[in-house]
Amino acid sequence: MRFSRLLVPTTKETPNDATLASHIYLIRGGFIQSVGGSGLYNFLPLGKKILDKVRAVVKDELDKAGCQEVALSFVTPSSLWEESGRYEKYGKELLRFKDRKNNEFVLGPTHEEMMVNLVRQSVKSYKQLPLNLYQINLKFRDEIRPRFGLMRGREFLMKDAYSFHTSTEDMQREFALMEDTYKKIFTRLGLEFRVVEADSGAIGGSGSKEFMVLADSGEDTIVVCSECEYGANIEAAVAKPKTYDANSEIKIITMNALYDDGESKIVHFALPLSIELQDVKACNALNANELIECEESDTIDTLVVDSSLEGIDSLSANHKLYADISSVCEGDSCIHCGSALTYTKGIEAGHIFQLGTQYSEPLGCNFLDENGKSVPMVMGTYGIGVSRLLAGIIEQNHDDKGCIWTKASAPFDLHIIISNIKDEEQVLLGEKLYEVVQDRGVDVLLDDRKERFGSKIKDFELIGVPYGVIIGKKLKDGLVEFVTRDGLVKEEVSVQEIESFLESRF
Amino acid sequence: MRFSRLLVPTTKETPNDATLASHIYLIRGGFIQSVGGSGLYNFLPLGKKILDKVRAVVKDELDKAGCQEVALSFVTPSSLWEESGRYEKYGKELLRFKDRKNNEFVLGPTHEEMMVNLVRQSVKSYKQLPLNLYQINLKFRDEIRPRFGLMRGREFLMKDAYSFHTSTEDMQREFALMEDTYKKIFTRLGLEFRVVEADSGAIGGSGSKEFMVLADSGEDTIVVCSECEYGANIEAAVAKPKTYDANSEIKIITMNALYDDGESKIVHFALPLSIELQDVKACNALNANELIECEESDTIDTLVVDSSLEGIDSLSANHKLYADISSVCEGDSCIHCGSALTYTKGIEAGHIFQLGTQYSEPLGCNFLDENGKSVPMVMGTYGIGVSRLLAGIIEQNHDDKGCIWTKASAPFDLHIIISNIKDEEQVLLGEKLYEVVQDRGVDVLLDDRKERFGSKIKDFELIGVPYGVIIGKKLKDGLVEFVTRDGLVKEEVSVQEIESFLESRF
Repeated sequence: MRFSRLLVPTTKETPNDATLASHIYLIRGGFIQSVGGSGLYNFLPLGKKILDKVRAVVKDELDKAGCQEVALSFVTPSSLWEESGRYEKYGKELLRFKDRKNNEFVLGPTHEEMMVNLVRQSVKSYKQLPLNLYQINLKFRDEIRPRFGLMRGREFLMKDAYSFHTSTEDMQREFALMEDTYKKIFTRLGLEFRVVEADSGAIGGSGSKEFMVLADSGEDTIVVCSECEYGANIEAAVAKPKTYDANSEIKIITMNALYDDGESKIVHFALPLSIELQDVKACNALNANELIECEESDTIDTLVVDSSLEGIDSLSANHKLYADISSVCEGDSCIHCGSALTYTKGIEAGHIFQLGTQYSEPLGCNFLDENGKSVPMVMGTYGIGVSRLLAGIIEQNHDDKGCIWTKASAPFDLHIIISNIKDEEQVLLGEKLYEVVQDRGVDVLLDDRKERFGSKIKDFELIGVPYGVIIGKKLKDGLVEFVTRDGLVKEEVSVQEIESFLESRF
Repeated sequence: MRFSRLLVPTTKETPNDATLASHIYLIRGGFIQSVGGSGLYNFLPLGKKILDKVRAVVKDELDKAGCQEVALSFVTPSSLWEESGRYEKYGKELLRFKDRKNNEFVLGPTHEEMMVNLVRQSVKSYKQLPLNLYQINLKFRDEIRPRFGLMRGREFLMKDAYSFHTSTEDMQREFALMEDTYKKIFTRLGLEFRVVEADSGAIGGSGSKEFMVLADSGEDTIVVCSECEYGANIEAAVAKPKTYDANSEIKIITMNALYDDGESKIVHFALPLSIELQDVKACNALNANELIECEESDTIDTLVVDSSLEGIDSLSANHKLYADISSVCEGDSCIHCGSALTYTKGIEAGHIFQLGTQYSEPLGCNFLDENGKSVPMVMGTYGIGVSRLLAGIIEQNHDDKGCIWTKASAPFDLHIIISNIKDEEQVLLGEKLYEVVQDRGVDVLLDDRKERFGSKIKDFELIGVPYGVIIGKKLKDGLVEFVTRDGLVKEEVSVQEIESFLESRF
């Protein structure tokens, strides 16, 4: 591709609202463009190309694992959401609207209901199971505070898969297959990642794992063992229980727990003095949506005592329950091997769930088993934030000059720069290399623009194609430069050898 | 692909609301599934695969023509639509909604405003032009009466391209290139089509052409010349003017013309007695939205006289204008060659427009010309109904048993049927052919299901893969059948020869 023919509006200006490297460089590099600053983005040619490359890796591995691609309507009837009970429950992130006939719809933020509806209409017998259907399609979540560019946009591209089984065992087999498939996908994309245990959140279900792209800028704190494979989102992390006795100091925290239906109640949480309350665990213990601070109050509805104090505490209340509500600290002992746990930061880029019959039961997604009995299908669900992955790749792979795309995600394999387009010799060599390398199937960007050398180099560094060939002033000495974008390592190669040099590399 | 592993929920039941062959067979063949009967569809695995094949042909030809793919946000801010003036004008097909912060958005039914917004932010100089950007993405039109399956759904997949130029001449060059590119696309897809002159409708602009897939079931009547290349939508068709004189009988038709702003006016139309009023032409003459019948009325605001009567009629009114408001009839003379015009039916599957500065002016999409002067870009816009094409292909290619996909659109190249899965010999041969042909890169469907032979054949006919191999009872005589789906032509081939036979075909 010729740079002169490509729309790549690079800029020096950092967007006002951008703090993350990926947000800054994806905008500055002309990959994406904000639409009215409201968490909506256009993908420009290079951004679209990278999106397609990432999508292709995801599709390829899923197809190999036996999944089947479909495409569900993005606009979905509210009635399905009422059937599952999520129409009320989902909160304001669910964008609801009415059509011209006053029928109610939502823009799908996730497609459990739609996929269950698809399957309940088309699958009747155990003979048709198992089934794993996926789509790579638009989603919309009306985030209260869209931010960080592609990391937390409102409209985004997601791969969402849903599997259907005759038994929990078979669902767990598929869950393991998907974990394995996701590992292949993240590895092919050149990402450093960690699979961690997770809280299931709004999707629900009994067990879930997150795929965390490791990056200091990650919004999620993950707890990892320094020795073994154990890793968990802080929201779901557990450590080896510490021992407390009746003399241990206990602290009481009072919070206001908010519920879907608008109700709230005052709750006391009791923990060992040195332990922090883990909000998500605390919410889960109460089935609440959110905890907010509140004034001390005499009206105590409920007392939740951390399970480490079970049988030790002498607290009493009308409603008292024990639950794990404690935050794991760095230095706590791994529940599996006893080694020290540490914190790290990650970007949630994938999430797989063991759903069970949570959706198939209310929506009546049943099959006839071998005995002719109608039973609900057992489900799993598996998501990858495809557009978010672009941000994840850059959070993990950038320097102070710009993007450093991984091989599998790079918009081009090689970037050839003709430093001075008025220099005939440079043009001649650039065009020749462009042709030769392209003929071998290498995807090349040729910078043939009438721009200053300095701005071409800046664009090379900003755009972040993994390798570059700079045809510059040293050409009169018979030399060109081969640059590895990661580290900006430069090698001088003679003009005579550059073709075979490139042949050995690509 | 093994049929036993694929979700293809074929059915004998014709959907209640279906009258068109494509609607019936796409549902019955398990390609698509209606979502609540409201013009929303899910694409099941085979439908998605065909959609991808069609999409790939479209992309390939556009890329070759130098267009660049982008992906624009589907949810678009209303403010852009206010800038262009279409927010009020577009009518109820434009789905409007508010987000949680009460900001107004629309689901893009077309993306002129969005693309102009993209370009005005990233292109400043004549050096960056021309530019042709496209996307293959979701659209939503809140049709009052969604019908005919994929033909007139509400959410659909569209390829929309927008080109930007320094001059009208350059835009017309691109318009011609796109006409040519569209011809290549429709030809590759194996469609019989006709390029016709068209009315520009809600998109606007000065000149437009439609790509009509010829089919008796088409909603559009097109006028074609029996001798030359001339073709036009009836809404835009012109014939060689007939001569009338002062003695010619004239008829007056009274209608109520409705406008965007809710206004209406009573209009009289005057035509030669034998000529029908063409509604769209009449609307265009008045800049009205719609004509509805009305009672005779004394209050006449306006009189429109057909241009064939100019200088002849002696009618008078406060507001009188001449315009071509006449319907072309079969048998009228071609304006180019004088031969007889005839009617035929078509499905609009593509539409290209010469837009001019209709959007770039109000939205301030300007560039600096060679003299440093800021001038609005000249635009063209080019659409293809990608999901509608699936329906178009089937309208043109089906029989009373089911679909007959064209080679470029077929879900598979070859469909091998093992008649009786309990017959070891049949299975052995089927599996062997499946492997051999697949190894050569042929995309094969192997029907390895435990189903009756009759239902397998019915599925073969319904699904419509272009070629089939039936391994059945005659295998004991050393024979299999090769079937061409179009016409269901059967050839007996000996087991010894079937491999080389298939090699010569694929």
